[in-house]
Amino acid sequence: MSTVLPPENLESNPRVKAVFDDIRATRQTGFINNIWRYLAFDDDLLERTWAEVKAVMATPSDLDPLTKEMLYLAVSIVNNCNYCVHSHTAGAKAKGMTPAQHAEVLKIVALASKTNQLATALQLPTDPEFLMEE
Amino acid sequence: MSTVLPPENLESNPRVKAVFDDIRATRQTGFINNIWRYLAFDDDLLERTWAEVKAVMATPSDLDPLTKEMLYLAVSIVNNCNYCVHSHTAGAKAKGMTPAQHAEVLKIVALASKTNQLATALQLPTDPEFLMEE
Amino acid sequence: MSTVLPPENLESNPRVKAVFDDIRATRQTGFINNIWRYLAFDDDLLERTWAEVKAVMATPSDLDPLTKEMLYLAVSIVNNCNYCVHSHTAGAKAKGMTPAQHAEVLKIVALASKTNQLATALQLPTDPEFLMEE
Amino acid sequence: MSTVLPPENLESNPRVKAVFDDIRATRQTGFINNIWRYLAFDDDLLERTWAEVKAVMATPSDLDPLTKEMLYLAVSIVNNCNYCVHSHTAGAKAKGMTPAQHAEVLKIVALASKTNQLATALQLPTDPEFLMEE
Amino acid sequence: MSTVLPPENLESNPRVKAVFDDIRATRQTGFINNIWRYLAFDDDLLERTWAEVKAVMATPSDLDPLTKEMLYLAVSIVNNCNYCVHSHTAGAKAKGMTPAQHAEVLKIVALASKTNQLATALQLPTDPEFLMEE
Amino acid sequence: MSTVLPPENLESNPRVKAVFDDIRATRQTGFINNIWRYLAFDDDLLERTWAEVKAVMATPSDLDPLTKEMLYLAVSIVNNCNYCVHSHTAGAKAKGMTPAQHAEVLKIVALASKTNQLATALQLPTDPEFLMEE
Repeated sequence: MSTVLPPENLESNPRVKAVFDDIRATRQTGFINNIWRYLAFDDDLLERTWAEVKAVMATPSDLDPLTKEMLYLAVSIVNNCNYCVHSHTAGAKAKGMTPAQHAEVLKIVALASKTNQLATALQLPTDPEFLMEE
Repeated sequence: MSTVLPPENLESNPRVKAVFDDIRATRQTGFINNIWRYLAFDDDLLERTWAEVKAVMATPSDLDPLTKEMLYLAVSIVNNCNYCVHSHTAGAKAKGMTPAQHAEVLKIVALASKTNQLATALQLPTDPEFLMEE
Repeated sequence: MSTVLPPENLESNPRVKAVFDDIRATRQTGFINNIWRYLAFDDDLLERTWAEVKAVMATPSDLDPLTKEMLYLAVSIVNNCNYCVHSHTAGAKAKGMTPAQHAEVLKIVALASKTNQLATALQLPTDPEFLMEE
Repeated sequence: MSTVLPPENLESNPRVKAVFDDIRATRQTGFINNIWRYLAFDDDLLERTWAEVKAVMATPSDLDPLTKEMLYLAVSIVNNCNYCVHSHTAGAKAKGMTPAQHAEVLKIVALASKTNQLATALQLPTDPEFLMEE
Repeated sequence: MSTVLPPENLESNPRVKAVFDDIRATRQTGFINNIWRYLAFDDDLLERTWAEVKAVMATPSDLDPLTKEMLYLAVSIVNNCNYCVHSHTAGAKAKGMTPAQHAEVLKIVALASKTNQLATALQLPTDPEFLMEE
Repeated sequence: MSTVLPPENLESNPRVKAVFDDIRATRQTGFINNIWRYLAFDDDLLERTWAEVKAVMATPSDLDPLTKEMLYLAVSIVNNCNYCVHSHTAGAKAKGMTPAQHAEVLKIVALASKTNQLATALQLPTDPEFLMEE
């Protein structure tokens, strides 16, 4: 089904093993999901992608982990990425998203997409109140 | 610039006036931004759209108002709606989004779009761990 | 504002002139809108694009001209093409789209985009009733 | 495969049953397709979504039912919603879309997406003739 | 799984046979992939689509065949077309794309999508240096 | 027009200055285009984004610089990012893209988007020949 195959004996490559070890340590789980296994077809792509995910998503910051995961899920829905919708729905549930919150994320995504289309269709001029002075 | 014009003497139409009064009361401001003025070219579209925005965004729920607004902003960015990016950036700031949180929303949107493309490019199989049993 | 410039003395190029003459004859107007003027930076691209537009949009077929134009408009909204939203809104109005029909197109585009997002978010299995047997 | 499961004994919930009864009555069929069964994970989302679909799609209006369904299909293709492409292709066929009309919808969607990309790539200025005076 | 079925005895239709013969001759292979078999549900759509693919992709031009195929793949990823990602990944490999080049295409697609979102989120003004004078 | 403002006295911030100095040295120009000036509203976002652009785009690799820039441009068109279409059209021209090559990129982007939509509309099954064995 995929367009590349994960290398065999993935963790015999020390760069891959280092990333996987860091994923396991950061997430405190032994589970390595497919995106990391398949990105391992290119060491550099794997390292850079994990480094960015770790920095943005797994480092304490001004947004709490559940909010970040719901934002990631919302983007994945709008980008229509099936794998990502599955993995980030699971991720958000693991971080505590309740069914009611899940429904709310969906309502916002759906409503925003609807009003986005209306605004585009109308070619709305931006209110001067929304503009910044330079 | 727009593809329809707001009717003249907008609030002489009682259905429009009722919606605008409710917007002002709900948001506690006299400011009616352009999307409502232009949607008034069709009474029904105006009423239904406001009813949904009010129900989803302006009613206490399981997500706090700032989180909801940031989700709306994230969707608007991915949908590439210029008006909406402006209005919901302004809306999120009005609800307390700090510059650091703003930067974080952007980092998540950008990262999610990046990994979404990678997952699509790889045509990743969904991990069985993410699937639900029916 | 554009990324290419229309050639000067556009119609001194006989291939361009032939296309423009055909546009004027087909549409029965002297007005050549910008997409044709700018596509003229490449003869081949201009000829092929007009040939396809003429075949699909300006040739009698199983759908009436207004329906076709509204479909073109709907696609242009979802693809978020500002130029195209303007030109096909104008085109649909020129073919008789009433304000009520315009509002209806917008309602359908907005509703469809909303339910599209919900279906993606839910990763809905397709009902067997919708599938064709091969 | 989905990210939520439809509740068991769906119609033991009176709000769900009321929506399903209305779907059956409106469409004059016993068949409830998956989007309604899965949206039932949240009463409110189910009720609101059906109310809007019924108002826009199943109420006599200025566009005939087949035209509306073809517009819905076109939007679903551009939004790349697999479930929706299947359900609205089936829906349009049920409302009388012939194979020739189906091919025509596809030609328009494909042509419009092509010219949308050209217009974006060229960053075309909008012809003044298309603009409205405010 | 599809929304139309390829006609039976496809090549008994002389228009279809002519296109298939040309595909086989142009590509020097007996393999006709699914898009051509399914597009055959409408003669005209099949003929036009192949004519354009042949003219743009299979005719010597100012870009080499591998570069063209990688551009096609990049567009297919961003448009999130599963079939197309598979077929154009295979096509690019057949034209000589190495694993390292494949990884590079993915890095560029992912990076570009990321910075595209940032530029949209920031609503960046275009630098005057990038604009053309008319 | 933008949603954030570049900080005043940008280069009084040593982290910003370091990035700008590296941009100038890498590109051998004094010109810092707007995306870098505006991303400077968040040090971390600026540093990470430039680091990735430099690694992917400005480091010798298995694809030549013009091919990489054309891929970036193609993605920017499909993502409909106005700023990016302008900046990467300018970038590709600076790296030697001829008008004929520019036209070819546009033809491929337009054709690919067209066939992408057809493949989605048909919900084409992937040919087994395109699939990899795992």
